[in-house]
Amino acid sequence: MTSSWEDIINELKRGSISALARFITRVENREQGWLEAMMTIYPDTGKARVIGITGSPGAGKSTITDRLTRKLVDDGNEVGIIAVDPSSPFSGGALLGDRLRMREISLLKGVFVRSMATRGALGGLSLAARDVVKIMDVFGKDIIIIETVGVGQDEVEVVKSADVVIVVCVPGMGDGIQAIKAGIMEIADIFVVNKADREGADQVVMDIEGMLDLSAEQPLQKIPVLKTAATTGDGIEELVTILLENFESQKKEAGWQEAMVKEEILGLLEKEIARHVRRRWTETGEMEVVVKQVLERKRDPYSVVQEMTASFIH
Amino acid sequence: MTSSWEDIINELKRGSISALARFITRVENREQGWLEAMMTIYPDTGKARVIGITGSPGAGKSTITDRLTRKLVDDGNEVGIIAVDPSSPFSGGALLGDRLRMREISLLKGVFVRSMATRGALGGLSLAARDVVKIMDVFGKDIIIIETVGVGQDEVEVVKSADVVIVVCVPGMGDGIQAIKAGIMEIADIFVVNKADREGADQVVMDIEGMLDLSAEQPLQKIPVLKTAATTGDGIEELVTILLENFESQKKEAGWQEAMVKEEILGLLEKEIARHVRRRWTETGEMEVVVKQVLERKRDPYSVVQEMTASFIH
Repeated sequence: MTSSWEDIINELKRGSISALARFITRVENREQGWLEAMMTIYPDTGKARVIGITGSPGAGKSTITDRLTRKLVDDGNEVGIIAVDPSSPFSGGALLGDRLRMREISLLKGVFVRSMATRGALGGLSLAARDVVKIMDVFGKDIIIIETVGVGQDEVEVVKSADVVIVVCVPGMGDGIQAIKAGIMEIADIFVVNKADREGADQVVMDIEGMLDLSAEQPLQKIPVLKTAATTGDGIEELVTILLENFESQKKEAGWQEAMVKEEILGLLEKEIARHVRRRWTETGEMEVVVKQVLERKRDPYSVVQEMTASFIH
Repeated sequence: MTSSWEDIINELKRGSISALARFITRVENREQGWLEAMMTIYPDTGKARVIGITGSPGAGKSTITDRLTRKLVDDGNEVGIIAVDPSSPFSGGALLGDRLRMREISLLKGVFVRSMATRGALGGLSLAARDVVKIMDVFGKDIIIIETVGVGQDEVEVVKSADVVIVVCVPGMGDGIQAIKAGIMEIADIFVVNKADREGADQVVMDIEGMLDLSAEQPLQKIPVLKTAATTGDGIEELVTILLENFESQKKEAGWQEAMVKEEILGLLEKEIARHVRRRWTETGEMEVVVKQVLERKRDPYSVVQEMTASFIH
């Protein structure tokens, strides 16, 4: 017998790790009652602080996550990690090391790691990650780290809802210039130049600072650019200090929270409406008739869509 | 003064390249009247053959596209190319060479190249690519090649609507095993092992054939695995021969066309409904009130969504 939502919610609040994992899976799968379950827990959310970590593959994001997590746990925090898997499965062997590292860290007391693939996130990756943040929050995690493997548009969407976004760069990858294109400058609250023992690290720092100066709409807002060498741990203490300051001061621009909530509601709404529309069309069998007409070019998909939109919406 | 849709459609049908470019831009931007314009041209679609090319970055996809295009043009075909840019801007310098190659080929008579980025495709990348295919088709292109730079889930969605899908692999990247994960085995109509002069090419061919044998639900359907060396042109003739055979025989499984049309209609429908919902919420100012309540935790996003879904949908 599968547990009721009520049971899982109670177990979740009591700190059951198994309930945490099952709750997330059910919500990801949009199992019957997920919306009501999220409604029930929502009033208990809003306590955890969320860190987003993104940057190019191979920049050392997961080593930074590892170091950061150990430090935060040592300081008495419960940490949740959401590892957003790449949409591209062709990224190669580097990931294996990341996975092993994640597995190791998931064994630490007070740490819970959840992987999230692009495929299969029924609600869309960004919305799904926000759901998971809330569930981990209610479970009692103090700090939640969302780490992306890649740095595409999807990943930017995922991390931008975090309280603090760390963008990781490394020397020798031309990241400086690329970051602007990615729409990443706009979401970064902290830049980290990792592998700072490598040649060119100072140049990368200067490039980033130069771009920040150029793009600064609010010249008073200073975005820190830190150097780290995550494998040795250099710079991690300083990163944690800056993170904590950032949590305190909430440096995000005015209206950021409102924009995030608005986006979340609209995203959820669109997905829900789409789900209804899909179901109704499939149930009535109307679809089969229309598809046949379109294939015979007696009708076109665009006028079908226009009619359907009018008929579905008040 | 901007031209009317009617003018652009007439110019498009008369073979104006400028009209082709402008038509695509307007549809991509969802400019007023785009739906009606697509309705108007739809009856003239369905003549062009569509080739999808995907595979890991660095596998030589754009060199294959280049060779293939030159051969097809030599044989008297008008060719349209849709180059789907990567969602990740961190892919590095390899792309520059691709871009230059594309530029060169776009200068050939009878060739039209259109780049398409993940960002900014208002209708979603896969739907947007299908629109562009139709527009190029009406313009008079005989063959349309959709080439993706990466090979993530988005790219799979984009190419799977093509009449023939070519998946490009190379020796030494462990692509064999990765391809299964990508959901690519299911959409490939032809496998190409490029850079076949490299060590390990035969092994990759054997790996792919082995996987095809294992995964074959219809053991009678033989998916060709070709070796090419696109830089020298080896194997391209054979690839073209197989492509033409494939166009003739339409080897896709039964119901494939229906599934593609169904997906397209549902995709368009969801986007259109979402657009309406977004606009209405923003216009009424209702959104501001609700967002405030959610931030104060007097309401939760999930019940808001449930109420809104009920109120929007008949």
